[in-house]
Amino acid sequence: MNATELILKKREGKSLTESELRFLVQGYVDGSIPDYQISAFLMACYFRGLAKDETATLTRLMLHSGTVIDLSDIPGIKVDKHSTGGVGDKVSLILAPIVAACGVPVPMISGRGLGHTGGTLDKLESIPGFRSGLSIEEYKNVIRKTGLVMIGQTREIVPADKKMYALRDVTGTVESIPLIAASIMSKKLAEGIDALVLDVKTGRGAFMQSLEHAADLARIMIDIGAEFNKEVLAFVTDMNNPLGVAIGNWLEVVESVECLRNTRGTNDASSDLMEVTYTLAGAMIMIGKKAGTIHQGITKAREAVHDGTAYAKFLELVEVQGGDRDAITNLERYPVSRFSLEVKSAARGTLQSIDPLELGLTAISLGAGRKKVDEAIDPKAGILLKKKMGDSVLPGDVLAMLFTDREEILQEARERIRNAFRISQQPAAPPPLIVSMIDQKGQRSWPPK
Amino acid sequence: MNATELILKKREGKSLTESELRFLVQGYVDGSIPDYQISAFLMACYFRGLAKDETATLTRLMLHSGTVIDLSDIPGIKVDKHSTGGVGDKVSLILAPIVAACGVPVPMISGRGLGHTGGTLDKLESIPGFRSGLSIEEYKNVIRKTGLVMIGQTREIVPADKKMYALRDVTGTVESIPLIAASIMSKKLAEGIDALVLDVKTGRGAFMQSLEHAADLARIMIDIGAEFNKEVLAFVTDMNNPLGVAIGNWLEVVESVECLRNTRGTNDASSDLMEVTYTLAGAMIMIGKKAGTIHQGITKAREAVHDGTAYAKFLELVEVQGGDRDAITNLERYPVSRFSLEVKSAARGTLQSIDPLELGLTAISLGAGRKKVDEAIDPKAGILLKKKMGDSVLPGDVLAMLFTDREEILQEARERIRNAFRISQQPAAPPPLIVSMIDQKGQRSWPPK
Repeated sequence: MNATELILKKREGKSLTESELRFLVQGYVDGSIPDYQISAFLMACYFRGLAKDETATLTRLMLHSGTVIDLSDIPGIKVDKHSTGGVGDKVSLILAPIVAACGVPVPMISGRGLGHTGGTLDKLESIPGFRSGLSIEEYKNVIRKTGLVMIGQTREIVPADKKMYALRDVTGTVESIPLIAASIMSKKLAEGIDALVLDVKTGRGAFMQSLEHAADLARIMIDIGAEFNKEVLAFVTDMNNPLGVAIGNWLEVVESVECLRNTRGTNDASSDLMEVTYTLAGAMIMIGKKAGTIHQGITKAREAVHDGTAYAKFLELVEVQGGDRDAITNLERYPVSRFSLEVKSAARGTLQSIDPLELGLTAISLGAGRKKVDEAIDPKAGILLKKKMGDSVLPGDVLAMLFTDREEILQEARERIRNAFRISQQPAAPPPLIVSMIDQKGQRSWPPK
Repeated sequence: MNATELILKKREGKSLTESELRFLVQGYVDGSIPDYQISAFLMACYFRGLAKDETATLTRLMLHSGTVIDLSDIPGIKVDKHSTGGVGDKVSLILAPIVAACGVPVPMISGRGLGHTGGTLDKLESIPGFRSGLSIEEYKNVIRKTGLVMIGQTREIVPADKKMYALRDVTGTVESIPLIAASIMSKKLAEGIDALVLDVKTGRGAFMQSLEHAADLARIMIDIGAEFNKEVLAFVTDMNNPLGVAIGNWLEVVESVECLRNTRGTNDASSDLMEVTYTLAGAMIMIGKKAGTIHQGITKAREAVHDGTAYAKFLELVEVQGGDRDAITNLERYPVSRFSLEVKSAARGTLQSIDPLELGLTAISLGAGRKKVDEAIDPKAGILLKKKMGDSVLPGDVLAMLFTDREEILQEARERIRNAFRISQQPAAPPPLIVSMIDQKGQRSWPPK
């Protein structure tokens, strides 16, 4: 067996056997197969796809390239959530404490910002002192104690994916649905989960811009889950607009804390964020057998916010992972950016949409994300939206606030943000936020009709 | 500009601009762009193709990555021939001296065996003392003096192609028609030619197995030639059967010398080889303005063989490039293989075809070719065909002779060769040897009706 033959086989659209895939994955991890053969193979995968069993086999091989954490000695059904990434998507920060407060253990390994989207890990690390780099032993101790743990990928977990993902990122081979599915699922399976709820984003601010691709990805991940006897339930949610009001790491922590404290009104600018959060949380609570249905789970989730147990769980998590509890209880003490700037409307009308891709890219230029993989992030930087879809806008109204230490970027950023707001005389017709639910039985509308 | 963006652009099926292609080619040659990005790019090219102007631009960039030899101070229209590679294809060895003897200078840079096909360079080097590694200065001196020169690729010529070809070979990206065209044409243009005659092989023993792909390749190379103001004329020729009787380096030199000496009958087993040789030579002589038409060129070529001037030219070339003239004039003095074996027929009937792919692969296992790029070749090893298409065969008739120093391979090789001969009771219907001629005006049958 040699790598060139296997590249040719995939190039001709054939399926690789388990031993052939093992040869490639093991050879890549141990260095006997060079990057340049794997990148050609990945590009052939992009064009030819992977069959269902190939995708499951690739996932299994990547999973077993490293440590698979065993949480079976921890009571309860361990359920995690994964989002394919959006703009303003701080759902994990709010949802994880809610679900844990409802008695369902949440083991969560998150990633950093990718492309124009933020990463849960970067957001958590904006909390002073917060340690996301726990050892596997610490990880198990934290979830045992708190019912919740939130860390970054460790060296022991899925090294094959780590190496392959870095290669895909620089060889134009990220956007392959089976490769995305295998990458996500290998990492999630390594966490020690029993089940997974997926938030597959679709629309202009998502990696899967079309609904069809989003549903494909969801189905492939559900199929992989079934291969491993792990229940996977997916929601396809809209990412044609940013979620909530904050984009930028600490700004998103602040919004999350305010949501957890229930200090934002029920019909305010974060309500889209909370609708997604409650729906996903409800599903996790149902799967974790702490509610009979998703709707009962949603009711429990709302109660956990209202009675303060979710916020208390969040503070507990911050403390146990080394974060500064006072920074959360006194949000106003956090350092502020050197520059803050209002973006004002020139138009009159109704806000139709806010381009999440432009917001995400502008947030990066303000310092909230990375242009190169090893760049430092400015946790203070970002954007706060002052108008949301459906709001009436008059000329001179503040649409958003920018926060940055980078003076040279201010004017350009202001123009980009202003142009991201689409205002017209028509009544707004926002797309449904939760497009559908997909499980092993198929896809159906959500909420059920 | 960065390489990942350009990979994505090609992956999406878009054309790259000249400055984008320059960024990739220069970056690859100077090492600033790694192998793994170029291999992903090449795989995207395999799937998406290259537009006509992209192919010409890539050719130009590769050409100017090294020295472009200037032969303008040497009188005459310099014409080379290139074959896409076949089994038993020793045409260059016979044709180059014929064309040079007719007064058309032939500057020829050849390659080594590739896959199951032989290489002119390996054949020449089987002549004791023959130096194929001339400097560019020596190359110019030899063609000035002899009207003919035959060398291998030098380090100075098209380094971009050398590096890229080695990468394509191990990443499953060889079989892209525009990449093949750019690779061939950049090398040929670097030789200092004024015009080129192409022999594009099609059929089971060829790299382009379908006629359609062969014609596509021919057209793309003709288009590239037009961009550089070089006349390119192509013949599509059949490679569903081996050419002539010898496969293996020295064995092919012997057959070539016998053809040049005109000691083989006009209707003998080498007549297919000579039909291709005379046709290509006739075209070169016509393009070199030593004949008014291809048919007049063919007549001149036949005369050069009959009157011995072509053979004399070959001897002159061997001598001036350091080869042992006596080895050619006394072919029987050459060392012989430790083992020779007859392959006998078990069947009775008419020989329909001989599988050139099986012959080529078996010849490699006998020692006539390389399985790895740095393997040594046994110049004595190979196969001599004793029956040709259309011959009657009785059980026990000798079909072929094998020559090798490798005892362990004999039985398997005999079986493979025997099975390569397709014998049946039907009358043989050999495919036309020269399928068509293609020039800038289009494709037409050959000979013209």
